[in-house]
Amino acid sequence: MRETLVIFGVLLLAVSISTAQQTRLENLHNKTILLFTPHPDDDVFGAGGTIVLLNRNHNRVHIAVYTNDDKGSYDPEMTSQRLAQIRKAEQEASEGLLGTAKENISWMGYDDGMLEYAPQPKLTEEATAIIRRIRPDVLLSVAPGEWFERWHKTDHRMAAFNTIDAVRAAEFWLYFPNQKLQQGLEPYKVPEMYFFYPSPQEANYFVNIDEVAELKFEAAARQVSQFEPAVNKYRPDWTAEDLKKAKDEMRHEQPKKDGHYVEAFRYATGFNQF
Amino acid sequence: MRETLVIFGVLLLAVSISTAQQTRLENLHNKTILLFTPHPDDDVFGAGGTIVLLNRNHNRVHIAVYTNDDKGSYDPEMTSQRLAQIRKAEQEASEGLLGTAKENISWMGYDDGMLEYAPQPKLTEEATAIIRRIRPDVLLSVAPGEWFERWHKTDHRMAAFNTIDAVRAAEFWLYFPNQKLQQGLEPYKVPEMYFFYPSPQEANYFVNIDEVAELKFEAAARQVSQFEPAVNKYRPDWTAEDLKKAKDEMRHEQPKKDGHYVEAFRYATGFNQF
Amino acid sequence: MRETLVIFGVLLLAVSISTAQQTRLENLHNKTILLFTPHPDDDVFGAGGTIVLLNRNHNRVHIAVYTNDDKGSYDPEMTSQRLAQIRKAEQEASEGLLGTAKENISWMGYDDGMLEYAPQPKLTEEATAIIRRIRPDVLLSVAPGEWFERWHKTDHRMAAFNTIDAVRAAEFWLYFPNQKLQQGLEPYKVPEMYFFYPSPQEANYFVNIDEVAELKFEAAARQVSQFEPAVNKYRPDWTAEDLKKAKDEMRHEQPKKDGHYVEAFRYATGFNQF
Amino acid sequence: MRETLVIFGVLLLAVSISTAQQTRLENLHNKTILLFTPHPDDDVFGAGGTIVLLNRNHNRVHIAVYTNDDKGSYDPEMTSQRLAQIRKAEQEASEGLLGTAKENISWMGYDDGMLEYAPQPKLTEEATAIIRRIRPDVLLSVAPGEWFERWHKTDHRMAAFNTIDAVRAAEFWLYFPNQKLQQGLEPYKVPEMYFFYPSPQEANYFVNIDEVAELKFEAAARQVSQFEPAVNKYRPDWTAEDLKKAKDEMRHEQPKKDGHYVEAFRYATGFNQF
Amino acid sequence: MRETLVIFGVLLLAVSISTAQQTRLENLHNKTILLFTPHPDDDVFGAGGTIVLLNRNHNRVHIAVYTNDDKGSYDPEMTSQRLAQIRKAEQEASEGLLGTAKENISWMGYDDGMLEYAPQPKLTEEATAIIRRIRPDVLLSVAPGEWFERWHKTDHRMAAFNTIDAVRAAEFWLYFPNQKLQQGLEPYKVPEMYFFYPSPQEANYFVNIDEVAELKFEAAARQVSQFEPAVNKYRPDWTAEDLKKAKDEMRHEQPKKDGHYVEAFRYATGFNQF
Amino acid sequence: MRETLVIFGVLLLAVSISTAQQTRLENLHNKTILLFTPHPDDDVFGAGGTIVLLNRNHNRVHIAVYTNDDKGSYDPEMTSQRLAQIRKAEQEASEGLLGTAKENISWMGYDDGMLEYAPQPKLTEEATAIIRRIRPDVLLSVAPGEWFERWHKTDHRMAAFNTIDAVRAAEFWLYFPNQKLQQGLEPYKVPEMYFFYPSPQEANYFVNIDEVAELKFEAAARQVSQFEPAVNKYRPDWTAEDLKKAKDEMRHEQPKKDGHYVEAFRYATGFNQF
Repeated sequence: MRETLVIFGVLLLAVSISTAQQTRLENLHNKTILLFTPHPDDDVFGAGGTIVLLNRNHNRVHIAVYTNDDKGSYDPEMTSQRLAQIRKAEQEASEGLLGTAKENISWMGYDDGMLEYAPQPKLTEEATAIIRRIRPDVLLSVAPGEWFERWHKTDHRMAAFNTIDAVRAAEFWLYFPNQKLQQGLEPYKVPEMYFFYPSPQEANYFVNIDEVAELKFEAAARQVSQFEPAVNKYRPDWTAEDLKKAKDEMRHEQPKKDGHYVEAFRYATGFNQF
Repeated sequence: MRETLVIFGVLLLAVSISTAQQTRLENLHNKTILLFTPHPDDDVFGAGGTIVLLNRNHNRVHIAVYTNDDKGSYDPEMTSQRLAQIRKAEQEASEGLLGTAKENISWMGYDDGMLEYAPQPKLTEEATAIIRRIRPDVLLSVAPGEWFERWHKTDHRMAAFNTIDAVRAAEFWLYFPNQKLQQGLEPYKVPEMYFFYPSPQEANYFVNIDEVAELKFEAAARQVSQFEPAVNKYRPDWTAEDLKKAKDEMRHEQPKKDGHYVEAFRYATGFNQF
Repeated sequence: MRETLVIFGVLLLAVSISTAQQTRLENLHNKTILLFTPHPDDDVFGAGGTIVLLNRNHNRVHIAVYTNDDKGSYDPEMTSQRLAQIRKAEQEASEGLLGTAKENISWMGYDDGMLEYAPQPKLTEEATAIIRRIRPDVLLSVAPGEWFERWHKTDHRMAAFNTIDAVRAAEFWLYFPNQKLQQGLEPYKVPEMYFFYPSPQEANYFVNIDEVAELKFEAAARQVSQFEPAVNKYRPDWTAEDLKKAKDEMRHEQPKKDGHYVEAFRYATGFNQF
Repeated sequence: MRETLVIFGVLLLAVSISTAQQTRLENLHNKTILLFTPHPDDDVFGAGGTIVLLNRNHNRVHIAVYTNDDKGSYDPEMTSQRLAQIRKAEQEASEGLLGTAKENISWMGYDDGMLEYAPQPKLTEEATAIIRRIRPDVLLSVAPGEWFERWHKTDHRMAAFNTIDAVRAAEFWLYFPNQKLQQGLEPYKVPEMYFFYPSPQEANYFVNIDEVAELKFEAAARQVSQFEPAVNKYRPDWTAEDLKKAKDEMRHEQPKKDGHYVEAFRYATGFNQF
Repeated sequence: MRETLVIFGVLLLAVSISTAQQTRLENLHNKTILLFTPHPDDDVFGAGGTIVLLNRNHNRVHIAVYTNDDKGSYDPEMTSQRLAQIRKAEQEASEGLLGTAKENISWMGYDDGMLEYAPQPKLTEEATAIIRRIRPDVLLSVAPGEWFERWHKTDHRMAAFNTIDAVRAAEFWLYFPNQKLQQGLEPYKVPEMYFFYPSPQEANYFVNIDEVAELKFEAAARQVSQFEPAVNKYRPDWTAEDLKKAKDEMRHEQPKKDGHYVEAFRYATGFNQF
Repeated sequence: MRETLVIFGVLLLAVSISTAQQTRLENLHNKTILLFTPHPDDDVFGAGGTIVLLNRNHNRVHIAVYTNDDKGSYDPEMTSQRLAQIRKAEQEASEGLLGTAKENISWMGYDDGMLEYAPQPKLTEEATAIIRRIRPDVLLSVAPGEWFERWHKTDHRMAAFNTIDAVRAAEFWLYFPNQKLQQGLEPYKVPEMYFFYPSPQEANYFVNIDEVAELKFEAAARQVSQFEPAVNKYRPDWTAEDLKKAKDEMRHEQPKKDGHYVEAFRYATGFNQF
């Protein structure tokens, strides 16, 4: 298969940013961006500042959400259907603050914590269709890596692997050919990819988000049910005190580089290149 | 999902022992310990000395054994049912020497070498139920890691991943809610975990087993069928000479640190922290 | 299970070539060699020079090809059945140049890009039968490793893992016992393994292919449909110019060590040793 | 396999009650009875009167419930976890009226409408373990038949087939041998079986329930959430009027034979005989 | 589960047309009709005349096609992608003649002969979404029955079962709740169903198609690739002679009742009633 | 798909022997016969007399055995590997008496009672390859039918369905096209089929086996382990008394018609015709 041509000479390559990158991510204008997120909030936590910058630059940002996040509550009164409903509303509010319209969020409809067990390659087929329909200039996704391998078997790992599998499949029309034959979806080659949640040794691209960090924290805080105290006993709002505490933690935990708030990514071009 | 809050700031964290650890593993008293082992012997080989120390300190040690180990013999006369029977008896004898009662060993009933193909998420559901029922203060399991990824795809990898998946699931009642609704099993958050068989670069915790090393080797030797000559042509006992040779090898191979016999672990708290 | 005996002392072992290796790969004579390749061409790209040397030394080289490679074309007129047919002919021509007879190539019959979803453990059972039938002195396969984990989820990863799973299974007759009971296939222990496409930090064995590099490039060029321009718009032959360009790239990309063309491998003995 | 011996002469057999039946079902005393039901209520609707008679005769009646029945409500405010909780309580109340103790109900923990997709043969293994543990003199289950085949693909069909598969498996210890080797469960041959919900042409056994019919209807009415109005808008209790209406319908719909209320069954001995 | 209420009294019911049917199928006006077909042509062969009548009466006819029919050719030059393309065009031409617009045909995208192996319950989920979106007054589908059970395991049986499973699931929002929570699809209860291809003993409804029979045969003939000679050696058109022969056969084989061309159905209301 | 053409007119067809049958089964000479059997003995019990007649007429009889029959013993000392070995030898002895050479028996290698769970469509692919390779003039298999549906879910049902699925697939090269592209197996249309173990109402063909009945009983008796007393406590041979008793039962149970021993079949041509 075609990919082998590149592997051929891989032995001596270092992991570095290819010189192919023309324009820095945060400087793109009027492009189509597609971000895949395992849960409705990983997009915000992992790349929220970058999303603000992209939206401000009049890019068309689309968010594809793999799961409904219907299990992550310690509240004994919570039920899955209720939590899914809450999570959808929180995600729309949160992305709304980042400038992404509700209509641009597509929900893939899988249950939280069960993505690993979703039927394959059906899951790949669905992500492939999204890529072939949106035809993004840049794709963002969660990083598949050793660290996730170990700690995030479910959902995060599956979302990471499935998305790059879909990137490869999208390129060749003979993968899932009914998408072309029946739906009119043409093959599409994703030119650039940025992976959020990279492991430290693999991060090779950093976006300075100083300017929009507070907005990001505010947006993250709209995911109310994921924070204390709502994660323990659901309430739809914040006390001023709880909100302050949550944001202070975010400020503390947000990665910094050379004294600036940054979001870290692994940059890659093509599914088989560095 | 909740875990993302921690990932949020993960970029700059180093792999080190958290300060949260209050009491060293070998000093625990009157606690509940749950160890998951892929086969009936990995518990002994990987953590046998530590198990002795835990039992001596009046902890309640429970062993959950994923598979029946019914394939690992070179004896052409051996059959799977017979080997499973032998392995169970050997494991009970071996753990018995370490101080663990037969009643504390639960057998999960999977066939050797086939754990990778066990139905998922059913397997996770079963391990989750064990955790929610035993409610351990400390959980031990085989380390999921790059090294195992490659060499131990079957059984070891699956046992490693499945156990941490179950640790996560056990925490939220909406995972496998029938366990609460029908069996009365409440969610449970595992506070501390130690992973045996760590890769060298990830071992961050060492238990000095000088004092009990010979007992460990004796216990390991009760897994007769796994050693030469019984692995080639089954016999239930040892000649003095064979036993001596086996133990000498164990003494040679047992990891040492600063001149002491040690058992190495990767220590972790929570399923998503270092 | 038996393998644990080795793991037992693994903590302090370094990743180095075992002293067990008696004869260098390229110096073997009159041996049986079995190479598993995910697609019909990875054998050539990854180990083509070595295959020439092995064939010249009168070894019996067998190639087992997992997939039919029926998807990797950008030609909108291409169909999967047609591409599979082309790929088979190209592989036979390519391996033929390396000295391997058409009869020694066995086709496992899986579709390109779908190996990850092949039924397990059926796939392992099939590879196990091949090993037990061929009984190779040396086995070559694609390296399972962190790098492949991430970039090559489908096919490459599955072929890598499945082959080593089969190596382990082949050793114990109680894995897939019907192979012995019904087909008369006896268990077999593979003594030595070489993995091509290793990640840089794991390559521990290099074959000097200076002498046969041009033949390798010529053989690789027989995989016409995988190169430009045929990958974009199929044609069965080369213009002189295109061929020259392709070979120049190969010369450029072929790994070199101390000024020599080399093929890199990770060498291992047994499925659980370095 | 052994069953073929019986099939051997099957061609000319008519579908009739075997003469092997010694004692009529409703006259059994001090026996162990095991009933498998797809949902918590099919036992009551299909065999409630018979269960009363069996309990009155001091038989030990055990109920194994495949699913949690967490989907069958038209109430838009209902959630699955809440409905599962309601259904469990209703089932305990309903069976309690029939004389079956709460402790004798075992919940197999599958989700409503999803039994068809439960992992096989794991599901069979679980039912087999229940049979080998309870060791029933008589087993009752939902009838597998053409009618159910068509109208009740999910749950009912799977419960029907799975139970008779488990009856066969329970008989030979080499099915799921870990149950014997690890749990000490010996093989068990079910002597007699009665299938409720038979298709009309296959019913061959009728229990007169005149005497306990009103008690059955009262017990059925405890499955409140399954009747109007609670099925549309949940309420835990009945108005007198609604209850009267529901019971009148039950009286009307309860099968009758020769002027008597009856419960119909297909009687069978062994898994492969009429 | 709710359905049991009806089963409750089923023993004495005969298989007959319910009196609930208000308006004969062929007399409906301005209704929404949804037909599920396993392959692109079963709709035409099984209910083509009825479809014409429904379209003439200004009903909104929607066709959901499970598979792409990409295997049923004896032409050795044919490939699957090419056949799928041909079959789509033929189906659009064929249904077009019956009065159904191309936009009303939805293609579910499964491969011919592989529907049985499609992931379940994903397949049910997809059909459920179609029902909840179209919200048909009448649903037509292929009859699940003993005859199909035996002769048409693949595709036909799966399409038949899956569609009635979806009818049941569509009714309760807790089946596939993400469809409501994320896509806004409300539950929907299908009031009437007609099954084409019934077994003779189960047909209980006949539509007189005398008036449109020739149009039906002409439409069927647009499925050129499915008839001789094109099924043996593809050609896109008919010779006059071949066409005449094909139509004569259709005239001969079209079921007749009391001297009239009819299409036979099994009529049913609800998923669990006659 | 093509089959629909036949279904088209099925409504009024009766279940009767087609006039297409040229030569009675027992009168065939020099033909190739392929029989699929779920277990090693169903061939003998269901069609043993017919097999003798076919062998005497110099037909080439091939037997494909789905499973190894490794579970059907009540002997607590028996193990699966030992039983599989016994069953293979018994089958070879039994078929040998009927005149079938050991080399003509192919073992498909599935475990007893687990055929239902074999990966699909892989199982169909394997049976398809056998048909395409053997290219039988007549195929015999176990009858798929309502009766088997209910009582023989596992193995028998799966073998029945899988074989007719394979008959259909074998006909069109686009099913499992790698069989042609890689193995050179051309599509093949099975002209005639006979199904043994038919349900009484579906048997439409009877072979008089008076002349060879005793030989059949003798051959059946070579399946020693399936009869009492060996099924309870294994012994490889018969006492004269036990053997007499077993044969007397066979004589009693062997179907008879008009005073003659017969073997009953359902005859069919093509996979979709009566």
